[in-house]
Amino acid sequence: MPTTEPIRDMLGRPALTPVTEARALLLAHLRGPDSTGHQLPLLEALDRVTAAPIIAPEDLPPADRSTMDGFAVIAADTFGASQSSPAYLDIVGEVLMGHPPSDRIRRGTCQRIPTGGLLPEGADGVVMLEHTVTVDETMIEVVRGIGTGTNVIRRGDDIRAGEPALPAGHRLRPQDLGLLAGLGIAEVTVYRRPRVAIIATGDEIVDYRQTAAAGQIRNINSVTLASQVQRCGAVAVDFGIVSDREEVFVATLSRAVAETDLVLFSGGSSVGVRDLGERAFAHLGKPGIIVHGVALKPGKPILIGLCEQTPIFGLPGHPVSAMVCFDLFVKPALSTLAGLPTEAGEPRATISARLTRSINSAAGRLDVIRGRLFLDENGRWAVQPILGRSGAISTMSRANSYFLIEEPSQGLSAGEAVEVYLYQ
Amino acid sequence: MPTTEPIRDMLGRPALTPVTEARALLLAHLRGPDSTGHQLPLLEALDRVTAAPIIAPEDLPPADRSTMDGFAVIAADTFGASQSSPAYLDIVGEVLMGHPPSDRIRRGTCQRIPTGGLLPEGADGVVMLEHTVTVDETMIEVVRGIGTGTNVIRRGDDIRAGEPALPAGHRLRPQDLGLLAGLGIAEVTVYRRPRVAIIATGDEIVDYRQTAAAGQIRNINSVTLASQVQRCGAVAVDFGIVSDREEVFVATLSRAVAETDLVLFSGGSSVGVRDLGERAFAHLGKPGIIVHGVALKPGKPILIGLCEQTPIFGLPGHPVSAMVCFDLFVKPALSTLAGLPTEAGEPRATISARLTRSINSAAGRLDVIRGRLFLDENGRWAVQPILGRSGAISTMSRANSYFLIEEPSQGLSAGEAVEVYLYQ
Repeated sequence: MPTTEPIRDMLGRPALTPVTEARALLLAHLRGPDSTGHQLPLLEALDRVTAAPIIAPEDLPPADRSTMDGFAVIAADTFGASQSSPAYLDIVGEVLMGHPPSDRIRRGTCQRIPTGGLLPEGADGVVMLEHTVTVDETMIEVVRGIGTGTNVIRRGDDIRAGEPALPAGHRLRPQDLGLLAGLGIAEVTVYRRPRVAIIATGDEIVDYRQTAAAGQIRNINSVTLASQVQRCGAVAVDFGIVSDREEVFVATLSRAVAETDLVLFSGGSSVGVRDLGERAFAHLGKPGIIVHGVALKPGKPILIGLCEQTPIFGLPGHPVSAMVCFDLFVKPALSTLAGLPTEAGEPRATISARLTRSINSAAGRLDVIRGRLFLDENGRWAVQPILGRSGAISTMSRANSYFLIEEPSQGLSAGEAVEVYLYQ
Repeated sequence: MPTTEPIRDMLGRPALTPVTEARALLLAHLRGPDSTGHQLPLLEALDRVTAAPIIAPEDLPPADRSTMDGFAVIAADTFGASQSSPAYLDIVGEVLMGHPPSDRIRRGTCQRIPTGGLLPEGADGVVMLEHTVTVDETMIEVVRGIGTGTNVIRRGDDIRAGEPALPAGHRLRPQDLGLLAGLGIAEVTVYRRPRVAIIATGDEIVDYRQTAAAGQIRNINSVTLASQVQRCGAVAVDFGIVSDREEVFVATLSRAVAETDLVLFSGGSSVGVRDLGERAFAHLGKPGIIVHGVALKPGKPILIGLCEQTPIFGLPGHPVSAMVCFDLFVKPALSTLAGLPTEAGEPRATISARLTRSINSAAGRLDVIRGRLFLDENGRWAVQPILGRSGAISTMSRANSYFLIEEPSQGLSAGEAVEVYLYQ
């Protein structure tokens, strides 16, 4: 296990951890999902994660089939056939959809076959309808020769019995469910979804359905975080708004740790609430806090820790900061708990865009800049930074995207190309 | 309305429509969503589409608040303050979270204030704790001067009463729900979700939960299409596997048109089933088929039409082709029915990758190539085309991405950079 003692700066404050390092430290502390999964009907398993590898129980397709409307033939009978020198074949039958062929194909004969039709015994290819001329009801001319296997999908061509169909730890997409349906697999074993506790703290916070009196502010974070949790395919469990009196807060936090797989609390970046978070961790036991703030804007005051194996995140109170911290730290943790491979090495798509104005940044800090992507007068993508405060949720709502200013950089210049990620 | 008479080629077959043209033709025929929406509690509205613009009913924040832990001051009292020449201020109180300040600030005085605390009357800025030195319980030194408004978020700085918070036709993301929560909007009016009928046809098709007899094949498309519908935020309604006898098929199709907002049937690219689809459209009435096949691989044999205002898609029977057609045509149609703006002008993120091998394409046709993105030995993205048949669903399951070979191109060369879209 990595060390959990914070490095301190000259004033004795814990030093900020770089984002990448903080994330690696977090993921190194996490256990995977419960080792057992549960079975779900295929149509309920979209976006769930496989708990075991799935092996093809049979060949797909189960037999050789035509991929074209045409005639099932012995390819050798058509070798060299052309418009000027066609091959003549006797029609000895017709393959009907959903039925086994009535007869086998012998040299010099053929059978009509529809797309998807079962290839009759003896046949090894299909001549497309368009490459035949009907002589009469009993005979065709083939005007273009085919090779063995032409227009045929062979038994097991899609997947063979015994081959791996899907690995464990795979998020089921529409095409994966399709593959399982093709193999006749009607139920799939998936991991259960992680449950995430959401706790809001702060004596000024009131439920968003209430009128806020002077000095009070509505609870935004429990709504944004629950929605982010839902987007990750996890289950949000609302633990409500909890007093920042230590004994009350610690009691709720302990209950959340006992009842869920991951705990989020948010309560402002004020020193008071941060102290509360630090004291609460001390009550919960080992390993405690592993990250005391990160070199990130917005999101610097995040606390990351664990109570035994349950990760706990003390998120900044500013709604934008909390959302950014969720994306950078909570989301990868949830992926690990869900049973997915770590995101390192996973492709992330971007849009290259021209920056409309210069932005400064402090070296040594990762900046996450909200942006508005738009097509400029030349039909190229440009991105307008949205530079409001991290307390202003409207800046996040106006953003359709974001981009990064990496740690070594002191800023970006107007006109520079930046790689932009979409907020979807 | 655009013309619905198909252009025919020299053999009298309807000519293939280019993909972009087919999509534009389709979208031009569609009505939007029902003009009325219904109300949902905020936490149930994630990913739903607003049915009306939302105007901020009040200022957010409702009053001036501190963004730092420190002291609320009159900025003019601190002008020019520095380490060597500090300003001295009397502490006359403390702002408590969730409560209105007890007193106003007069010249030469200050109040302790936490992050998020309501700014006392008279104060116009906050000095950070770090820029003060405590003299005693009643006095501080300010060692760095501030300007008016420093460390304060003003009433309405986030959003002002009467300003537009969200437009109509906006898909609600976590941050949008957060903005509404901040404004005390507990319910939101959204469009209802489009309902999509899924019909499988073909006498060889059996339910995927059944054993397939010789010549039979399990129903993959109803599973993949239902999952794709679900991913679009629409509701899939399974109309089962229907005989391809014309009267039975037309009766089911009519019922689907009556009961849902969009109808999908898939039944193979064979001429037989395609003919069935064309005859069925003729029974349903105007405007009928508007696209008879597109210049696309895979997906060429798609039929697109309408019965009055309900769009109907005859999708190819090959699972991969049906999925590709869904993405290119059904998805944008569903967006329009859901009330979202058309995708034209919407950013789509990609990953630039090196193509590992050359691929040929016919000019005049859009090719959608399944691919496997991976990091090559130099840590750069490369994409390996997956070149199996469109009947082989495993090729789609092995793919994590796709890329396009545009109509004018006759192919791409190994080593070329291609823009790759993720299958997520």
